[in-house]
Amino acid sequence: MGKQNLTLMTDLYELTMMQGYFRNKDRNETVIFDAFYRNNPMDSGYSICAGLEQVIDYINNLHFEDDDIAYLRSLGIFGEDFLDYLRDFHFSGDIYAIPEGSIMFPREPMIKVIAPIMEAQLVETAILNIINHQSLIATKTSRVCFAARGDGIMEFGLRRAQGPDAGTLGARAAMIGGCVGTSNVLAGQLFDVPVKGTHAHSWIMSFPDEYTAFKTYADMYPSACILLVDTYDTLKSGVPNAIRVFTEMREAGIPLTFYGIRLDSGDLAYLSKKARKMLDEAGFPDAVISASNDLDEYLIDSLKVQGCKITSWGVGTHLITSKDWPSFGGVYKLAAIQDAQSGEFIPKIKLSENSEKITNPGNKKIYRIYEKDTGKIKADLICLVDETYDENEPLVLFDPNEPWKKTKLLPGTYELRELMVHVFDHGNCIYHSPKVMDIRDYCQKELETLWEETRRLVNPHGVYVDLSQKLYDMKISLLNQMSQV
Amino acid sequence: MGKQNLTLMTDLYELTMMQGYFRNKDRNETVIFDAFYRNNPMDSGYSICAGLEQVIDYINNLHFEDDDIAYLRSLGIFGEDFLDYLRDFHFSGDIYAIPEGSIMFPREPMIKVIAPIMEAQLVETAILNIINHQSLIATKTSRVCFAARGDGIMEFGLRRAQGPDAGTLGARAAMIGGCVGTSNVLAGQLFDVPVKGTHAHSWIMSFPDEYTAFKTYADMYPSACILLVDTYDTLKSGVPNAIRVFTEMREAGIPLTFYGIRLDSGDLAYLSKKARKMLDEAGFPDAVISASNDLDEYLIDSLKVQGCKITSWGVGTHLITSKDWPSFGGVYKLAAIQDAQSGEFIPKIKLSENSEKITNPGNKKIYRIYEKDTGKIKADLICLVDETYDENEPLVLFDPNEPWKKTKLLPGTYELRELMVHVFDHGNCIYHSPKVMDIRDYCQKELETLWEETRRLVNPHGVYVDLSQKLYDMKISLLNQMSQV
Repeated sequence: MGKQNLTLMTDLYELTMMQGYFRNKDRNETVIFDAFYRNNPMDSGYSICAGLEQVIDYINNLHFEDDDIAYLRSLGIFGEDFLDYLRDFHFSGDIYAIPEGSIMFPREPMIKVIAPIMEAQLVETAILNIINHQSLIATKTSRVCFAARGDGIMEFGLRRAQGPDAGTLGARAAMIGGCVGTSNVLAGQLFDVPVKGTHAHSWIMSFPDEYTAFKTYADMYPSACILLVDTYDTLKSGVPNAIRVFTEMREAGIPLTFYGIRLDSGDLAYLSKKARKMLDEAGFPDAVISASNDLDEYLIDSLKVQGCKITSWGVGTHLITSKDWPSFGGVYKLAAIQDAQSGEFIPKIKLSENSEKITNPGNKKIYRIYEKDTGKIKADLICLVDETYDENEPLVLFDPNEPWKKTKLLPGTYELRELMVHVFDHGNCIYHSPKVMDIRDYCQKELETLWEETRRLVNPHGVYVDLSQKLYDMKISLLNQMSQV
Repeated sequence: MGKQNLTLMTDLYELTMMQGYFRNKDRNETVIFDAFYRNNPMDSGYSICAGLEQVIDYINNLHFEDDDIAYLRSLGIFGEDFLDYLRDFHFSGDIYAIPEGSIMFPREPMIKVIAPIMEAQLVETAILNIINHQSLIATKTSRVCFAARGDGIMEFGLRRAQGPDAGTLGARAAMIGGCVGTSNVLAGQLFDVPVKGTHAHSWIMSFPDEYTAFKTYADMYPSACILLVDTYDTLKSGVPNAIRVFTEMREAGIPLTFYGIRLDSGDLAYLSKKARKMLDEAGFPDAVISASNDLDEYLIDSLKVQGCKITSWGVGTHLITSKDWPSFGGVYKLAAIQDAQSGEFIPKIKLSENSEKITNPGNKKIYRIYEKDTGKIKADLICLVDETYDENEPLVLFDPNEPWKKTKLLPGTYELRELMVHVFDHGNCIYHSPKVMDIRDYCQKELETLWEETRRLVNPHGVYVDLSQKLYDMKISLLNQMSQV
């Protein structure tokens, strides 16, 4: 489907700008770009970072093949000098990133690229594409899992995903965000994550009757026997036939380890309660009731509130497309340009009539501040890379939008952790991506550092992301310089 | 990113069902599956079919490699007999499809698969994934183009697409739906479609001042010189600096062929009118004003109604994710099973409490009926493959939901065209996919067969999709059989 080498998967303007830098600038001029986002998707209280492993693959593979050069030549806008330069192009810079599975908040650099301007410019589009997509799906998934109150969520969306990668990399992100498995076999193979699934209506319809279809399935897959009961009539036909098969399995001495039914239509609250009663009365209190059918976090939450008897959920379209909020608004902005003489980074700021869109200048890092006695996140602090903090000193935080609002944290009450890790060092990858299931475990621990009030689905409590005094002063000073009349 | 071979990009249940068919059925039992959808996305009056070329690639590549077999073995649910069978697996059936770029309506088979049940079952997930994605984006794009009233729409969404394929195959679908170009260079290379783009805010910010940035850009790209004017202040700085550069180009004798400005923030109606006036007064009435910034069909329509002076549009997130309706609900349902003795197809129907979800049984084809004097679509007619119609006879149509509502078409007033083409014949592809720009041309002609009332964005007039008397009678008879108490 796609090409393995995504070097040309970039906006044309990255290449026209590169040629512009090539002709008109010191090619080795080093710059800093930050990839960050301005608002959490779905009005969530947080987001989950995902996609770094694929960004690393992309950077490691970055090179122009002969047919790429030939294609660019055919466009008639690139000179031979520039095309020659592209022949030996590779990424030689540094990248810092928030690790996958981490909780993150608006305005924090998810990825920081420090590289010669031509390299830093080229990689913008692919980095945003990858991080925006996977962070969106991981965040959506964590909300669906929150609504399910500990029940397992299975990712079932491949057929409705926006193309093959959206299905497969989306399944990866869904696992990071908390799913217990995916129906996507390719995702299972590529990322070593559990694959799940049973049968479709077509299985039932291809047999003379529902009982025969169930019985045949149970004979083949006795140890994971979830029967789809809604092909004809859930309560009059599906559940009774399932009970008949489970009874026969028990009588034949087949151990009923993981078995039950799947509801895929109708009123899931009502049907699950009726089915639970029928299964219990037939002596199958441990039969699982799973459900699917256009579910999202709000519907699952509502079904839980209604006392449904579903304990396992298959979520498709809404999860794999993040249907109510299908894009994560990550952007990539110039933060500094290195002075060739002094080596110092000259901070850059992007103005906007909308103050929310004004960027944070300079070479930055992020500290997460935890409340020591609960382990919960107190706030995040964006500062400049040369700033250090001593946990034995008091820490004064202030709101960058209303700087008179201050909070003083006393020594012993808080702990600091730096968020970004060093991923590429002068073009060499020095970071080893964990396995997806390990990222998932890490993400579960990350979610425990949020208060319930920040995790709730509607109107969550926001977490403060503050600026250090030094960064704040730099920003105000640049704004004053730029707005001189 | 993804693998080229998408054979494992399927739901696990397709494989568990396959093993079930393998063990319990005549392996050569031939079945018919229809891929169709129930409602147009975005409450549109029509949809545009796209993705067939990638479905063909998928089917042609369908095979299990050694590492795929090894992975499936590792799951512990597949027997060696079945894994051996997969080793030689290939698609041997027939596929019929509505060609890409065609107008289509709900309940019409977009793709019909006639194949041994194991093969027909396996390909469900990938076919739906590909067709659902590209048809969604093509349909969305045609709406955006309709709103722009003939202005060019550029696809700028790669960074917000749901992963690499969603960006690149999405750009392909956007071209089919009517875009004049895409920013995605990889899409340009793979599909031979025009690529477009100029520069970003970072270009401006990397120079000491806006004028120098513009001037440098204009020197390099004089024949496609669109300057981004909103980095500092659109009307006070951006437009005046652009005019200064255009004036210098004119004075230097550089031909101003394709040049102008791009607005990317602020009130686009107001700014475009002011900028138009400034450009006209400076003697640049043919300077193009293009715009971007979170546009969709409704916003473009509103700007047009307000008399904005924009004639070129870059559309990103809303188009590439179909943001307000990010999934196309294509499904894949069993329609018939061939009787091994007689060779006849026994029709199958899927019941549902929701009558809309009841499927159309049997081996079907689709006729499009045109009004002869206007060339516009009168209705579509789904019938059984052995039915024929004579244009010299009157044609009686009836509404399948309210069958007493009838329309009689007189000979000479209508024309018939069969919609589906034969794509695979006994496993061999006999269809040649047109080039994307040719599909785009075909789609433009297809759109001309719709009344404006069907194209309008809100509350469009629906086109009837009727059933033949024979198909209707078969359906009612099956429903009566199944609902006997």
